[in-house]
Amino acid sequence: MEFHTTYSDNNYTIYVDNGILNETLQKYTSQYNQVFYIIDSHVYDLHEEKFTNFDTVIKVPRGESFKTIENTIAVIDELLDQNIKRNDLVVVIGGGATGDGGAFVSSITLRGVDYIHVPTTLLAHDSAIGGKTAINRPHGKNLVGTFYRPNAVIYDLDFFETLPEEEVLSGFGEVIKHAMLAGKESINRLVDETKDGLDITRLNEFILYGIKTKMYYVSVDEKEDNLRKFLNLGHTLGHALEYSFKLKHGHAVVLGIIGSLYISNKMYNDIFDLESLISYLKKIGYDLSPLKEMNTTEMIHYMSSDKKNMRKSFIGYIILREYGHPELIEISTSDLEALLNEMKAII
Amino acid sequence: MEFHTTYSDNNYTIYVDNGILNETLQKYTSQYNQVFYIIDSHVYDLHEEKFTNFDTVIKVPRGESFKTIENTIAVIDELLDQNIKRNDLVVVIGGGATGDGGAFVSSITLRGVDYIHVPTTLLAHDSAIGGKTAINRPHGKNLVGTFYRPNAVIYDLDFFETLPEEEVLSGFGEVIKHAMLAGKESINRLVDETKDGLDITRLNEFILYGIKTKMYYVSVDEKEDNLRKFLNLGHTLGHALEYSFKLKHGHAVVLGIIGSLYISNKMYNDIFDLESLISYLKKIGYDLSPLKEMNTTEMIHYMSSDKKNMRKSFIGYIILREYGHPELIEISTSDLEALLNEMKAII
Repeated sequence: MEFHTTYSDNNYTIYVDNGILNETLQKYTSQYNQVFYIIDSHVYDLHEEKFTNFDTVIKVPRGESFKTIENTIAVIDELLDQNIKRNDLVVVIGGGATGDGGAFVSSITLRGVDYIHVPTTLLAHDSAIGGKTAINRPHGKNLVGTFYRPNAVIYDLDFFETLPEEEVLSGFGEVIKHAMLAGKESINRLVDETKDGLDITRLNEFILYGIKTKMYYVSVDEKEDNLRKFLNLGHTLGHALEYSFKLKHGHAVVLGIIGSLYISNKMYNDIFDLESLISYLKKIGYDLSPLKEMNTTEMIHYMSSDKKNMRKSFIGYIILREYGHPELIEISTSDLEALLNEMKAII
Repeated sequence: MEFHTTYSDNNYTIYVDNGILNETLQKYTSQYNQVFYIIDSHVYDLHEEKFTNFDTVIKVPRGESFKTIENTIAVIDELLDQNIKRNDLVVVIGGGATGDGGAFVSSITLRGVDYIHVPTTLLAHDSAIGGKTAINRPHGKNLVGTFYRPNAVIYDLDFFETLPEEEVLSGFGEVIKHAMLAGKESINRLVDETKDGLDITRLNEFILYGIKTKMYYVSVDEKEDNLRKFLNLGHTLGHALEYSFKLKHGHAVVLGIIGSLYISNKMYNDIFDLESLISYLKKIGYDLSPLKEMNTTEMIHYMSSDKKNMRKSFIGYIILREYGHPELIEISTSDLEALLNEMKAII
């Protein structure tokens, strides 16, 4: 299946299917003098047989540990050592973190070279679309980066067969988020079809659905001036929990969404049946205990450096007026801390 | 005087006049919650009285020495320490190198914050326009960077009064380049008006002229796919000489232009009176000896990593068909080395 972005220019194609990697790559690589492959070392070890015809492979540390400035510069220097030209191509193969860091490398090497992202985790279906690149600083996640579009995204579902359960749960967190942003019908259907547990072979439909939702948001608001902010649903508290409890990203987003809906319920007369949602989430395997154990003062501290914040002592927070209708509110740090403490009782 | 860029969107204004810094800045800074000033430490010491009402000043190493990855990250971390938000403003005050590095910092902090460039050298009139940002790697100059437009450029001519002669000569190199790109009339007038020496009080007209030329080129070809490449006239050999002899950038460009015109003369029947040009350049103060002393094998080595190159063993080289008519040619490394050795005789 193919999707096409709908920007005013520089559009690209997102390919989604089983077993398409080499064939699709070749359509692109044949147009370039030199192609460099940046591959997550863990993915490389698991799928070495897929990469045998790649010339220049640069293996990078697994997952989020890649996203340091030191690793960024090491990869850039390796590309320069190998005499990369501005009209060469970089192919980034790995999960969301590899994509963030590899795309950042591509965006600043020689002021930007072409790149293709090959996501290998469920979660990456989120970060691979939208042209956000990033690395981390000690101050927080994704604080250094660029907006830079890939030339293509190749989503070979074969990679998923090797995903461990925690990766599936993490990836499914963003699928839940996208369904909630899409509307009541989408989230109800998702819950209904997965209420007996996550079966990875049945998830393709939801992945495709997530891609469409994401593409809609980023095509109307690439630079996150307005609508695209809503894709951060669950990410404000989520990033703080992720950092503090070393959680998988999508797992943390699910916890953050519970925080958002709890605030929505306080503002809009209990419109969400949080009790049912919580029992569903527990049943399919999410550990919600960090929401009970979190130090709310520490969480507020982390949330204070969120990129969405516009005023001191206020946190920009995304809630849902109803499913399909996100809102960005500003909530004072003291009110937010009180609400988060209150919420612990329902987990 | 004000110039306005003519992109299809995100245009900005270039202000050029004496004594306009604080008044013009205020028009912008009043729209932001927080403003951070990145200032070349040498410029800061020379003009401290101009900066007394600035809140948050980050002093950075003088000139090109700022453009390392370590300095880039140190400044970003300082901005993050001070809790910079995506809707804050960075003001970069210094010469071309400070502008390159400060703009790069602005372009990748929180995926890009607004910035204003305040050039303090003649040379910066070139780099401040066009939205190129850059830092260096051991492999060469400007190999890491982004394309990222400023929100304004404020060119306060008061800064020039303190420029040492080598800075004036360096800046004048780009003025000569722009005049040659503009056409025969421009370069003849420039030579005529400066044949008795460079008088800085008479240069404003040429600075303005240079800005206009630069703006024309970058507005029609921002990403250097085509026409903008011509602004690199003199830069191919120039960068190699700059690196090898530790020359000022504009001085090296002048030497590089002699190389370009020498090749033009070989290809197009001696259309340029190089002898007169060389004696003019010597008279106004340029030291041309590096062209005689250069190790051409070493120069070819440096030129081989130039971003303009598209093929191995060929150098992308900009020459002039006549004044006002630049051309990009590809010349084999062996032919180029032979020509450069031959040229030594006429210096």
